[in-house]
Amino acid sequence: MRIVLALGGNALLKRGDAMTAAVQRENIRSAAGKITPLSSQHELVITHGNGPQVGLLALQAACYSQVEPYPLDILDAQTEGMIGYIVEQELRNHLPRSLSCATLLTMIEVHPDDPAFIHPSKFVGPGYNDDEKERIAREKGWAFEQDGDRWRRVVASPRPHRIVEIKPIRWLLERGVIVICAGGGGIPVFSGGKGGEILAGIEAVIDKDLASAVLAEELSADLLVMATDVRGVYLDWNTPGARQIRTITPAELKNHQFAPGSMGPKVEAACRFVEHTEKRAAIGALSDIDTLVSGTAGTQVVPKDIEK
Amino acid sequence: MRIVLALGGNALLKRGDAMTAAVQRENIRSAAGKITPLSSQHELVITHGNGPQVGLLALQAACYSQVEPYPLDILDAQTEGMIGYIVEQELRNHLPRSLSCATLLTMIEVHPDDPAFIHPSKFVGPGYNDDEKERIAREKGWAFEQDGDRWRRVVASPRPHRIVEIKPIRWLLERGVIVICAGGGGIPVFSGGKGGEILAGIEAVIDKDLASAVLAEELSADLLVMATDVRGVYLDWNTPGARQIRTITPAELKNHQFAPGSMGPKVEAACRFVEHTEKRAAIGALSDIDTLVSGTAGTQVVPKDIEK
Repeated sequence: MRIVLALGGNALLKRGDAMTAAVQRENIRSAAGKITPLSSQHELVITHGNGPQVGLLALQAACYSQVEPYPLDILDAQTEGMIGYIVEQELRNHLPRSLSCATLLTMIEVHPDDPAFIHPSKFVGPGYNDDEKERIAREKGWAFEQDGDRWRRVVASPRPHRIVEIKPIRWLLERGVIVICAGGGGIPVFSGGKGGEILAGIEAVIDKDLASAVLAEELSADLLVMATDVRGVYLDWNTPGARQIRTITPAELKNHQFAPGSMGPKVEAACRFVEHTEKRAAIGALSDIDTLVSGTAGTQVVPKDIEK
Repeated sequence: MRIVLALGGNALLKRGDAMTAAVQRENIRSAAGKITPLSSQHELVITHGNGPQVGLLALQAACYSQVEPYPLDILDAQTEGMIGYIVEQELRNHLPRSLSCATLLTMIEVHPDDPAFIHPSKFVGPGYNDDEKERIAREKGWAFEQDGDRWRRVVASPRPHRIVEIKPIRWLLERGVIVICAGGGGIPVFSGGKGGEILAGIEAVIDKDLASAVLAEELSADLLVMATDVRGVYLDWNTPGARQIRTITPAELKNHQFAPGSMGPKVEAACRFVEHTEKRAAIGALSDIDTLVSGTAGTQVVPKDIEK
């Protein structure tokens, strides 16, 4: 099978982990050990989040005042390099020498008229007091929302539409390369110019699960796996009656509500991929990766015809 | 021809430029306009430096004290993402839609017994006073050298030996993709473990021209071009008798001395590539890129048999 595997943020940093390079490497090493057995039977594309890492770069840049902080698209590109490097190195260290691995910088096209740009909602970077917030809003036109007793910048999270580097990704897969790409949901760009031929970065963040769904669809993947630190999608989560969904269709799944920014985007990504492709999506724990792939663990989102 | 084109630091930042994202983008846009006409006739691999960018990331990280600064290999990976992104985007904006472009994260193997590790000499990151320097040297084991009235960290600049991702780079070239790789001289790694199968990053910097020479050799490139802001290699540079070398063999070129860290590594890279492959290398101005490639501008380093 051709599998797109989206590594949840916790594969890199578990809740409460210090954000050091050593901790991230240790977590990724453990993930690589679980992923590599799949490579002998399947074509693998690996994506990952970058939320805490972009936050750290934004904090560091805000702290050093002699150069104006770089825009978010460039910080995204930095995290694709950094996280991709650690993932690629740890995968290579678990793989037989005959298998090759490559990390591709990935831009993803969004639409400038996406409604997300009207109500930016994703927190990014450090907290500011009232005066700082007023000054920065005036100087840079950033939007802010209150986060506790501080103000933080908010940016849009537009929907992904097109993977710019889809051809090179496909060509590498065809040569048997394990491809790491679309890190952090990809670098958001929009197209302008006369024939839409000019790409430009935009200060936004794309949800990595939705980006992975678009990638899986464009690659004609057979399976989209979203690996996280819970066993699957639960109904009545955080209540005594919490129960895991084993197998479900997109139509049924859409009858339920899930936490935005957490299980919500995973469910949406799974539904999108399954509806568009009639293939299968799985959401569950990275430690269950074998059975997630074979279809017996986690929450399996299936098209109607398979379920019957 | 298959051409490896190494973009000198000045293609990204000219002397005296502010290190903002906008300035770098503007410089890269201009470079992209000069490079893209080559793509209709040649296979192109593009490499670039990262010195000022790594320095900025190290400064920003040192300024924010809540997370221990990431090691140099990770900062290198960040700059490969960031600079690769801008180069790829600007190239794409100049290329016909039919041509594809990809940025590959690149590790380069160095030998841990390289003599450069005994006498680290490359400055990196901010300046420190005596007390700070003593404390950091004790805590982290970093080496320092005096730079003016401050202390700065020095790291080794070992010789590059092997491009880890050479196969994916070659496969993309075979599909007609313009490949951006080995940014900043690549991420330095060494191999350990029983059979040398474990890669680990190392805190060092690889000269980007030497890395480009190894890359060109491993790719069986026909031409290695090092594009900078001077017209070529000069004898008696900075004297009234300065004169440009037009065509020369490696054996003749080695009779002269050039500035370390500037023309020195370019000359060494050119000699290495020409001696190992019997192909041609060119050193000159990016604005002369057409004639550098055709062989009539800059300094052309040629094997003996062509010269006769």
